[in-house]
Amino acid sequence: MTETIADILAAHRAGTTTPAQTIARCYQRIRAHADPALFITLRDEADAVAEAVALAARDPSLPLYGVPVAVKDNIDVAGLPTTAACPAFAYQPAQDSTAVAKLRAAGAIIIGKTNLDQFATGLVGVRSPYGIPRNAMRADLVPGGSSSGSAVAVGAGLVPLSLGTDTAGSGRVPAMLNNIVGLKPSLGLISTTGLVPACRTLDCISVFALTVDDAMIALRVMGTPDATDPYSRARPIAPMSAMPDRPRLGVPRPDQLQFFGDQQSEQAYADALQRWTSLGAELIEIDVAPLYETARLLYDGPWVAERYLAIRELIDATPDALHPVTRQITLGGKAISAADTFAALYRLQALRKLAEPAFAAIDALVLPTAPTAYTVEQVLADPVTLNSRLGTYTNFVNLLDLCGLAIPASIRADGIPFGVTLLAPGGRDAELASLGRMFHADTALPMGATGVALPPLAALDADAGTDHIQIAVVGAHLSGMALNGELTSLDGRLLRATATAPDYKLYALNGTVPPKPGMLRVAAGAGAAIALEIWSLSPAAFGRFVAAIPQPLSIGTLKLADGALVKGFLVEPAALEVARDITHFGGWRAYMAELAKAG
Amino acid sequence: MTETIADILAAHRAGTTTPAQTIARCYQRIRAHADPALFITLRDEADAVAEAVALAARDPSLPLYGVPVAVKDNIDVAGLPTTAACPAFAYQPAQDSTAVAKLRAAGAIIIGKTNLDQFATGLVGVRSPYGIPRNAMRADLVPGGSSSGSAVAVGAGLVPLSLGTDTAGSGRVPAMLNNIVGLKPSLGLISTTGLVPACRTLDCISVFALTVDDAMIALRVMGTPDATDPYSRARPIAPMSAMPDRPRLGVPRPDQLQFFGDQQSEQAYADALQRWTSLGAELIEIDVAPLYETARLLYDGPWVAERYLAIRELIDATPDALHPVTRQITLGGKAISAADTFAALYRLQALRKLAEPAFAAIDALVLPTAPTAYTVEQVLADPVTLNSRLGTYTNFVNLLDLCGLAIPASIRADGIPFGVTLLAPGGRDAELASLGRMFHADTALPMGATGVALPPLAALDADAGTDHIQIAVVGAHLSGMALNGELTSLDGRLLRATATAPDYKLYALNGTVPPKPGMLRVAAGAGAAIALEIWSLSPAAFGRFVAAIPQPLSIGTLKLADGALVKGFLVEPAALEVARDITHFGGWRAYMAELAKAG
Repeated sequence: MTETIADILAAHRAGTTTPAQTIARCYQRIRAHADPALFITLRDEADAVAEAVALAARDPSLPLYGVPVAVKDNIDVAGLPTTAACPAFAYQPAQDSTAVAKLRAAGAIIIGKTNLDQFATGLVGVRSPYGIPRNAMRADLVPGGSSSGSAVAVGAGLVPLSLGTDTAGSGRVPAMLNNIVGLKPSLGLISTTGLVPACRTLDCISVFALTVDDAMIALRVMGTPDATDPYSRARPIAPMSAMPDRPRLGVPRPDQLQFFGDQQSEQAYADALQRWTSLGAELIEIDVAPLYETARLLYDGPWVAERYLAIRELIDATPDALHPVTRQITLGGKAISAADTFAALYRLQALRKLAEPAFAAIDALVLPTAPTAYTVEQVLADPVTLNSRLGTYTNFVNLLDLCGLAIPASIRADGIPFGVTLLAPGGRDAELASLGRMFHADTALPMGATGVALPPLAALDADAGTDHIQIAVVGAHLSGMALNGELTSLDGRLLRATATAPDYKLYALNGTVPPKPGMLRVAAGAGAAIALEIWSLSPAAFGRFVAAIPQPLSIGTLKLADGALVKGFLVEPAALEVARDITHFGGWRAYMAELAKAG
Repeated sequence: MTETIADILAAHRAGTTTPAQTIARCYQRIRAHADPALFITLRDEADAVAEAVALAARDPSLPLYGVPVAVKDNIDVAGLPTTAACPAFAYQPAQDSTAVAKLRAAGAIIIGKTNLDQFATGLVGVRSPYGIPRNAMRADLVPGGSSSGSAVAVGAGLVPLSLGTDTAGSGRVPAMLNNIVGLKPSLGLISTTGLVPACRTLDCISVFALTVDDAMIALRVMGTPDATDPYSRARPIAPMSAMPDRPRLGVPRPDQLQFFGDQQSEQAYADALQRWTSLGAELIEIDVAPLYETARLLYDGPWVAERYLAIRELIDATPDALHPVTRQITLGGKAISAADTFAALYRLQALRKLAEPAFAAIDALVLPTAPTAYTVEQVLADPVTLNSRLGTYTNFVNLLDLCGLAIPASIRADGIPFGVTLLAPGGRDAELASLGRMFHADTALPMGATGVALPPLAALDADAGTDHIQIAVVGAHLSGMALNGELTSLDGRLLRATATAPDYKLYALNGTVPPKPGMLRVAAGAGAAIALEIWSLSPAAFGRFVAAIPQPLSIGTLKLADGALVKGFLVEPAALEVARDITHFGGWRAYMAELAKAG
């Protein structure tokens, strides 16, 4: 049986399985899977088990305590060579990449380095001297790339977590082709120190997992600033939240969709949109022409010069050391001028601005992850064109500093997996996850190629890892009530509904428009438990929200039924002389319902 | 007599001078100044006066009501040609640049287009086929460039405001050489739509004025987002504030200072630092090596390709149309490769990160604006090297997205003006102004070459144009008291001390550490006026501040003595049973003083 990260952590913490047993089982599965092209370097099993045994000295509440992880072989892992799928380039890194160091600090056990399209150039997984990893879903299909081995390792259930990289789609296309989750974080969120660069200004380390929640555990472990990476940025990860009542999802105008004749993909995308609609989403047509123009910039523009720059010495000195397709693409970056580079940077900046209003009007854009799928045979016969088609919906993403989340949507009748990708402006990774986890759960698909059904959705651990501020609302700001829009327009998120400790009295204030209550703390136990909702706001949103609250209301500290303290609404007693005590209703909603009935 | 913007606005609003009179006087002065090289195009006087007359139909409270403005001739003004000091390049713009449109919307009257180093390439002001504007301070000196005419126009008292541009120091070096203020805003703050690009990724429209406060009026008028400029950014301008008690000013290590043998400049810089010290500043030595390395990147690196790109058709087709020095520099951008461009972008990103910690430890860096000054004769004899020296302290600024404020510091014994520039990370324009206005006033220098003394500093219009939130504190957060650090560590600024309306009672709470009061609103007039301080915080800082306030305190809305409402501290009445009523002290500070005496 396949385990998610959550399963493994639960077993380790309960003591029903030891980390060493988990690692040993992982190696058994790798042997049973018997794909010599999946790992470029598999770590010595005894080594990995010894590291797992040593975990006994550490805290079992570590977020990845004893979780086996596979790492794409363009990311440094101390003790294992980094090849980037080019033997002539291989070196022995002196230390872990920052991302791997953070995984290990969180209790993860690295078990090997996975195959990739050489120098992460490609979306197919067939451009490697180390062979072609076998697609986990259908052996004749390409595994997808460039993070081929990492995607297959998760899809085949060998490990619950792997690292890929994503510059133009390498963390999303193979996720779809192996029926797993591919999380492409916002630029700068995961440090790229210790990554072999493809395009340094665009590269992201990405996450493959079986569920969205698993991917987010890994993202929270790795997604913190790193002073050693000049492109690292502080991008606080919001808490995940329940899906909004009516998420606004952007979709391309119908004439802008491209499936290259693949009607099953077209149907699968339509079905996925139908699922979103039935989950309550509002679909909003967006003009995606600026996105397509951005995508063309990526390969027609100067960024390929970054790939050339990354391996300039090697490719100039020994071009034969490269895979022929990779060599051809990379050398295309040699002759571009600085002037044309700046011209492309200007155009990109203009396209970013063009794309902004569309994204401002939606919670996320939902696109096919890839327009179709190809077999190994097809791609070997036409290696550049078919590769390029696979990037239709991914190539523009990093140039626009979007974050992306690829999630499985369905298995077509022909056994080919189809997936959709959620996209939003950088910094909204957790918001995508909040949407994506609901969709994925609703598909009730098996995880990867394991045949094991998705687990039920876990309860949310609301504010983990954020500086968001919780605020309890008791009146007109409750969901569906007159002033709730003040919270949602500030990107507020509903965390839960609960009640105060029985220390409060609630009053209907006189003459307020819209009608509002005021809540007053009295002696402990001398009041009632008043129903409330707890929302989460960023510090700036919270600041603006508080600044807009009129007399006689204020924001103080409320005691909840469970004893916890949270910021929330209070009233000045000076306003209560002419107010009606409605404490016995137990909350504003009950009072308003009564009022409506009476009216 | 020379007028500042503030003088002119006051006269127009009082009706003692009409805008038409102001414009007519401006043209008289231009004629009297008699420098044919200052303006490339002077607007027809009757036109300008007619526009001023038409202002009668508009609101005299407009922020630049009837203020004459000169505009550098690489910025579009509808009705006047744009030449960029290259006749072969000249065109008739169909509309105002965004910056000029905003000036006009604010009541400004454009009176002409000023000379510049061709295509804004240079810091000297001698690279123009339209001649060399005469330095306002000493006729043998270069006027400085590239914004030569605009700086001289203000320095000579012809206009109180002009626009320059600044890519590598063109808005600062000429400010120093003409003894005026040069404000180089944060990147993206003033739209560059309608500007002839030099380096589009670095260009700023800059402001010349006689005082810092005047420059800030113009910045607030122009410094708002513009959808037509892809590089425009929302960068809210904070309120100016009183200078902090002990501002931390960075200075280079002594061995890193460069004056190219000019001992008078060296002494003038030392004197300026002495002035800062006597104003209360703490000088902190900073390693400026990363700044110098950044400066070298500007002209040795790929950015010169942006200059080439901006005029590629012209320079490739008719190279003789260019000034020979400009041609030589610009053609240097032709042969640079995309790979080397990205390599330089990576290095720049690393240098940005290297510079960050230094700037985090200081309020501003204070440098000489230029290391020395040269005569026209000297520069014509050695046009590239001497130009380059003038940029020693300016070239790195835009690459690092710093904002800069050049202010006069002294007039040397030889009559050459010396100035210093304050630098801080982008977005802190107003903070630099808060420091700079105090320093400039303290110099008691005449304004420009006018012989008129600086006016006394005006009172601050605290929150103009910001989204900062005001909060009234009544207890331990008052200046100098136990929790005041919570405000200052959040970059809070003290705006003023005042009192509540007489509707409040103040209590000393029982058992709080440190001791805290609680303030309760009672019936109108039934309490006392309680002393308080009003501080200003950004929304996020305000949010964090409120989130940290413990029970039984809350933040509500206070009524002040003047009837204004402001956010501020309140207390829950449930906490007052055992509290002492100290209302008769009129404030926490008086109560604590009494306590100390008693204790």
